[in-house]
Amino acid sequence: MASHSSTLLSSPTFAPFSSHRLHYSPNLSTLRFSRPIRNKPNLALRCSVSIEKEVPETERPFTFLRDSDDATHSSSSSTSSVRARFETMIRAAQDSVCEAIEAIEGGPKFKEDVWSRPGGGGGISRVLQDGNVFEKAGVNVSVVYGVMPPEAYRAAKGSASDQKPGPVPFFAAGVSSVLHPKNPFAPTLHFNYRYFETDAPKDVPGAPRQWWFGGGTDFTPAYIFEEDVKHFHSIQKQACDKFDPSFYPRFKKWCDDYFYIKHRDERRGLGGIFFDDLNDYDQEMLLSFATECANSVVPAYIPIVEKRKDMEFTEQHKAWQQLRRGRYVEFNLVYDRGTTFGLKTGGRIESILVSLPLSARWEYDHKPEEGTEEWKLLDACINPKEWI
Amino acid sequence: MASHSSTLLSSPTFAPFSSHRLHYSPNLSTLRFSRPIRNKPNLALRCSVSIEKEVPETERPFTFLRDSDDATHSSSSSTSSVRARFETMIRAAQDSVCEAIEAIEGGPKFKEDVWSRPGGGGGISRVLQDGNVFEKAGVNVSVVYGVMPPEAYRAAKGSASDQKPGPVPFFAAGVSSVLHPKNPFAPTLHFNYRYFETDAPKDVPGAPRQWWFGGGTDFTPAYIFEEDVKHFHSIQKQACDKFDPSFYPRFKKWCDDYFYIKHRDERRGLGGIFFDDLNDYDQEMLLSFATECANSVVPAYIPIVEKRKDMEFTEQHKAWQQLRRGRYVEFNLVYDRGTTFGLKTGGRIESILVSLPLSARWEYDHKPEEGTEEWKLLDACINPKEWI
Repeated sequence: MASHSSTLLSSPTFAPFSSHRLHYSPNLSTLRFSRPIRNKPNLALRCSVSIEKEVPETERPFTFLRDSDDATHSSSSSTSSVRARFETMIRAAQDSVCEAIEAIEGGPKFKEDVWSRPGGGGGISRVLQDGNVFEKAGVNVSVVYGVMPPEAYRAAKGSASDQKPGPVPFFAAGVSSVLHPKNPFAPTLHFNYRYFETDAPKDVPGAPRQWWFGGGTDFTPAYIFEEDVKHFHSIQKQACDKFDPSFYPRFKKWCDDYFYIKHRDERRGLGGIFFDDLNDYDQEMLLSFATECANSVVPAYIPIVEKRKDMEFTEQHKAWQQLRRGRYVEFNLVYDRGTTFGLKTGGRIESILVSLPLSARWEYDHKPEEGTEEWKLLDACINPKEWI
Repeated sequence: MASHSSTLLSSPTFAPFSSHRLHYSPNLSTLRFSRPIRNKPNLALRCSVSIEKEVPETERPFTFLRDSDDATHSSSSSTSSVRARFETMIRAAQDSVCEAIEAIEGGPKFKEDVWSRPGGGGGISRVLQDGNVFEKAGVNVSVVYGVMPPEAYRAAKGSASDQKPGPVPFFAAGVSSVLHPKNPFAPTLHFNYRYFETDAPKDVPGAPRQWWFGGGTDFTPAYIFEEDVKHFHSIQKQACDKFDPSFYPRFKKWCDDYFYIKHRDERRGLGGIFFDDLNDYDQEMLLSFATECANSVVPAYIPIVEKRKDMEFTEQHKAWQQLRRGRYVEFNLVYDRGTTFGLKTGGRIESILVSLPLSARWEYDHKPEEGTEEWKLLDACINPKEWI
């Protein structure tokens, strides 16, 4: 069976083709996806993407890039160096988040799995399970090289040209993470930042390469501490405001809309920021923006965990946290594009499902009494608020 | 938002259109589904099914049938009386299973919710949660009247006629249940029996009514006791053999194929029987067969629970049961037709998700050591066995 960008897709929202519906075609040993055609929203297109099977590695390589993309090995163009700088950025983000988690844990360490693909690309999965503070913490990076069919490239460009390119190579890289603390007063965190790029088709003179950024940081408390929510959203807003005053309101709403459990008519948590297919700004600016967002994860989240991790709680608090974890499972298994894509395409299941909590709970017809702390959380998930 | 046959779909595999891909069309306030056309397996058809919103009732009615279908109120044909007899059968099955569960519980009782639809039909949901023996036990019956578009009727008949009927009324009824015991040595049970019927189109002389039966009983232990597995499968085989010697081998394999967690390449449990769209036998014979199967639930399952419910167990046994419950959640949320249909169509969520366990667990990269009891169970889920 064809493998694919499994670790790349190992957490919610981390599909490089995240706005596309994907289909697995076992007979072709390829992935198939249909995506809305830009400027032609009513059309969808099916095409095949082939990615090699991953193999385990004993050591972390200096880079997962192919030599031709690696600035230290070649006279790379400024565009290809975005690949190199994005990889450097996501690996640094992985390191800094894992260091911050291990510092809080005070003993327990992440377990690391490294893998690569023969034709280039690979990833690093890190998981810390049943620690002192965290029930389960997963932080993954991955770099994927693949080939997309000409139809996908032309659709993405909205090109009217009759000249048809051959299959178009693409590159995708990202960091993704879900952190589930034990204490019911400490929120779950998810973040994911990714970059996607196609090569310029060689056989169509003047046809450009394409690229876009996606990602976000969102958090999921079981109980509302307004100061925590304000702190978390303020850090997201600060990161956004450094680049464009429209970013925070727009990406905050996008986040509320994306993490929506339709069959419950509620969001899985209290949001944050989310964006996808972002390419209508300067590329360097968006690389800096994604970097700023990734660097904001530790200051946005770790102080909240520090404050809540040792708070006393009752069995009822724990049961409510477990019910909310059940909602997390529902969102990830039913709606999340990265997860559902990964499950359908036969990827590395343990990497894909590391986003699920260690434990979760479903009670029949559980309704928190109006006015209780549990009810307040649920109300905020049903009616998203402006926190700052 | 249009409501639908929610309780009817409240457990795995209980979709009246269970072999069809369904789509929700919010603007039309209808359900849309595409089904493979009989005799034309490569074609699929989209059509709309409209069902009214349910309302709560304070008392169980004598019947959920419309007066015109109820033998006590009309001179019903022998075919319409299958509706009445099927309703009687599923309500008796619900009663007998609930009585058996309450007898084992020795105190805790089922909580009952009754609902109906203005134009006919309704249901009874019963749930017992956090009992002495059962973590969660749900037993539901429902009766649904709806209207399917002419394309669906014609597709189902494979008719070559050019005469196009108007919208075709349909009837669907079923019992569905999932029982999750607390003790990790006592298996989870699922069963579901359903009957589907269309009216004969009034405007096409000679066009017949259509009908089919579906259902099954399967069980999901966390640990294998060979005597239990043999007992469970023997009772299924006995029920099947009374009608056709081909039934047990055929429906046993169908069950293994249906309850398959593709992304894990393992079944969720140790199977039983499963069948769907069954109409190529005498209708009275299939009604008797479904009745026999439903009547076999108590003798197949209850003696096993009696034997295992008080066995001593360790934290490790419980954790393994919880991991297997995680697989149950994965199957139901990702693959089960009844559940995924119900979630997409905005049904009564608490009825649909009553099939989920009270609690479940996901450990990163958990692999039972070869030769252990946990490994034996996993091996039997990966490689289905002939138990008798």
